[in-house]
Amino acid sequence: MTPLIDGLQYANWSEKIFREMRAGGVDAVHVTITYHETFRETVLNIERWNRWFERFPDLIFQGLSASDVARARQTGRTAIFFGAQNPSCMEDDIGLVEVLHTLGLRFMQLTYNNQSLLASGCYEAEDTGLTRMGREVVAEMNRVGLVIDMSHSGERSTLDAIAQSSRPVAITHANPSGWHPALRNKSDTVLRALGETGGMLGFSVYPHHLKGGSACTLQDYCDMVARTADLMGIGNVGIGTDLCQDQPDSVVEWMRVGRWTKSIDYGEGSAAAPGFPAMPDWFGGNRDFGRIADGLRATGMDADDVAAVMGCNWLRFFETSFGPAETAGTRLPRAAE
Amino acid sequence: MTPLIDGLQYANWSEKIFREMRAGGVDAVHVTITYHETFRETVLNIERWNRWFERFPDLIFQGLSASDVARARQTGRTAIFFGAQNPSCMEDDIGLVEVLHTLGLRFMQLTYNNQSLLASGCYEAEDTGLTRMGREVVAEMNRVGLVIDMSHSGERSTLDAIAQSSRPVAITHANPSGWHPALRNKSDTVLRALGETGGMLGFSVYPHHLKGGSACTLQDYCDMVARTADLMGIGNVGIGTDLCQDQPDSVVEWMRVGRWTKSIDYGEGSAAAPGFPAMPDWFGGNRDFGRIADGLRATGMDADDVAAVMGCNWLRFFETSFGPAETAGTRLPRAAE
Repeated sequence: MTPLIDGLQYANWSEKIFREMRAGGVDAVHVTITYHETFRETVLNIERWNRWFERFPDLIFQGLSASDVARARQTGRTAIFFGAQNPSCMEDDIGLVEVLHTLGLRFMQLTYNNQSLLASGCYEAEDTGLTRMGREVVAEMNRVGLVIDMSHSGERSTLDAIAQSSRPVAITHANPSGWHPALRNKSDTVLRALGETGGMLGFSVYPHHLKGGSACTLQDYCDMVARTADLMGIGNVGIGTDLCQDQPDSVVEWMRVGRWTKSIDYGEGSAAAPGFPAMPDWFGGNRDFGRIADGLRATGMDADDVAAVMGCNWLRFFETSFGPAETAGTRLPRAAE
Repeated sequence: MTPLIDGLQYANWSEKIFREMRAGGVDAVHVTITYHETFRETVLNIERWNRWFERFPDLIFQGLSASDVARARQTGRTAIFFGAQNPSCMEDDIGLVEVLHTLGLRFMQLTYNNQSLLASGCYEAEDTGLTRMGREVVAEMNRVGLVIDMSHSGERSTLDAIAQSSRPVAITHANPSGWHPALRNKSDTVLRALGETGGMLGFSVYPHHLKGGSACTLQDYCDMVARTADLMGIGNVGIGTDLCQDQPDSVVEWMRVGRWTKSIDYGEGSAAAPGFPAMPDWFGGNRDFGRIADGLRATGMDADDVAAVMGCNWLRFFETSFGPAETAGTRLPRAAE
C-alpha cells in the first residue's frame, strides 16, 4: 500500500472538503483542532468533530493509530488525526497530556510563535529553550505517545526538544530557511538534527513559507523537496501542506492574535496584506496532491522515493509514535532509511 | 470463568485497598469518579486515576470493555470501570456524553437525590420524570454505550428511563423498598420493569439501605437477594456494595450537599448521626465477598445462581452495554476499544 498522507491542514471543514479528500485519494490527514483554546474550548472543538464523524461516516473517521491509515484505504475513507498548534489546550496541567491523548490528540506544538509555558516561539526576540515544565511535558508526551511538533518554535527550543525527547520529533509544516528565509522556516542545523534522530519534516505549501510566495513554481518547490531529502535523509520528509481551505480572514487573525494582545499582530502577513495569501496555482486543495507527486518525479526522484515523500514516511512515523513508550527513558530505534 | 464483580464502590482509594481487591479476588469494580463536579473537575479526578494506574500497574488498570474482565483475571489485576453518580460532569452539553465515554465513563446516574437537568431525584417532593434534555441524553447514552444508572432517581423518572431507553438500564446500588423502606430503595414495580427489560440491580451493603441498618444479618441480606432474584429473574441481579471504605465524614457531606445548598442536608443520615454508618460485621471490604457467596449458598441457591449473582450477570451486562449501539445510522466503531 502506498498511502497518501498530509502532515497538516486547518480547513473550514465541510462536506465539500471531505468529498475533495476522497476525490484526491487522501488516506489520512493531521488536522489542527485547536490553537489558543483552553482545555474546555478544545473539547468543544472535539465535539464538533464528533458531529462530523457522526454525519459523514462514509467519508471520514477519527484516526487513533497507524493501522487506521490502512483501514481508511480499505473502507474508502479519510482518517482524521487530531493535533494542537499550541499547548493552551493542556493549560498548566501535565495530567491533561494523557487525557488529550485519550481523546485522540496525536500531535501538539510546544509553542505557537510566542513564548509558552513550555518553550519559546519563533517570533520571540530571545529563545531560552525548553522551560522546566517543558522538559517534564516532553517526557510525558514521550510516555503516552503524543508527538512533539516544533513547527512554530524557535531554533534553540527546537534543538532542545530534539535532544531531550526520547522519541522522534516532528516539524509538521515548514520549509528550509536556506531556501526561503521566513522566521517560520527551519535552518539546516535543525533539519539535520531532526533527520539524525528519526524525526519528520512536512513540507508546507503555505505561500509565506515558499520562495516567491504565491508565485512559487511547482518545479522550485519540488527541487527544494529533493535537496532537503538529500540533507535530512529520504526517510525523514513528507508533505504538510498547511492548507487553510475556505477559511475567512478572521481565522488567520485568531491564529496570530488569540487572546494574547489587544492590538493586531500581522504575523507573516502585513497591514497591506493581513488575510490569507492566495495559494500557488498548482495546489488549491485535496485534489492536487497528484501534481506534487508528478513534480517530484520530474526532478528525477524514483517511484519509491516519491511514495516515501507522499505518505510512506508519515505512515512509518505514525507506527512508532502514537502508542505508549515501550521503554521509559530510552530512545526508540531510529527509523530505517 | 466465574468473575467477581462489584457494581459500585466509592472508596478513599489507596494501595492498601487495591491490595485488598487482589486479596479478595475482585476482578472488576464500577467505581464512582464524580458526584457534583463540573466536566473540568471530573477530568481532574480522571487524572488522579491515571496516576494510580501508572503507579500500580500490577494491581489495577482501567476497564473499557467487557473483555477487560477476563484480562483482569488472566493478569491477576482488578479492572476499574468509571462511573458518575450525577450528570454534573456533562454540564448542559450533550456533546460531553461521547467525550466522557471516550475517557472511559461507562455508567452515569441521571440524578443524585435532587432534580437534575435530566430527571428527578428520589428526595424531591415531586417527580416529573425525564425532562426534554433527559430524553435526548438517554438516546445519546444509548448510542455511545454509556449505561443509564437510576440508583438515586425517583420512581417515575426511573420507570420513564426504563421505558425510554433502547438498551437495558442499571440500578447499580440499591435494595427493594419492600424489604427496607428507604427513599433510596426501589419498589417492586420498578424492579419488575427493570428485570423485564434486561436491566440489572446491584444489591447494596450500605447500612442505610439494609433492614436493621448496620445490625442487618448476613442471612437477612441473602434471603432478600434470593427473594428479589425470584421477582426480577436470576439473570438480572448482582452485587453493588456501595462500599465507601476509609472515607472521612467530610466526603459523605460532599456527596449529600455538593454546592446546591448553604445548609447541611443529612440525606439518609441525621443530625445525631451525620457521618458514614458502620458497615455490617460480615462485610468490611473487598476481602469479604466470599462471605456473601457463602450466605447465598446457605439460602439454598445452587452454584450457578451464586456465580450469576457474584459476577456472571454483570459480565454479561457489560458485554452488551459498553459498545456503540448496533443500529443503522450510528457511527462506525472506534478503532481502539
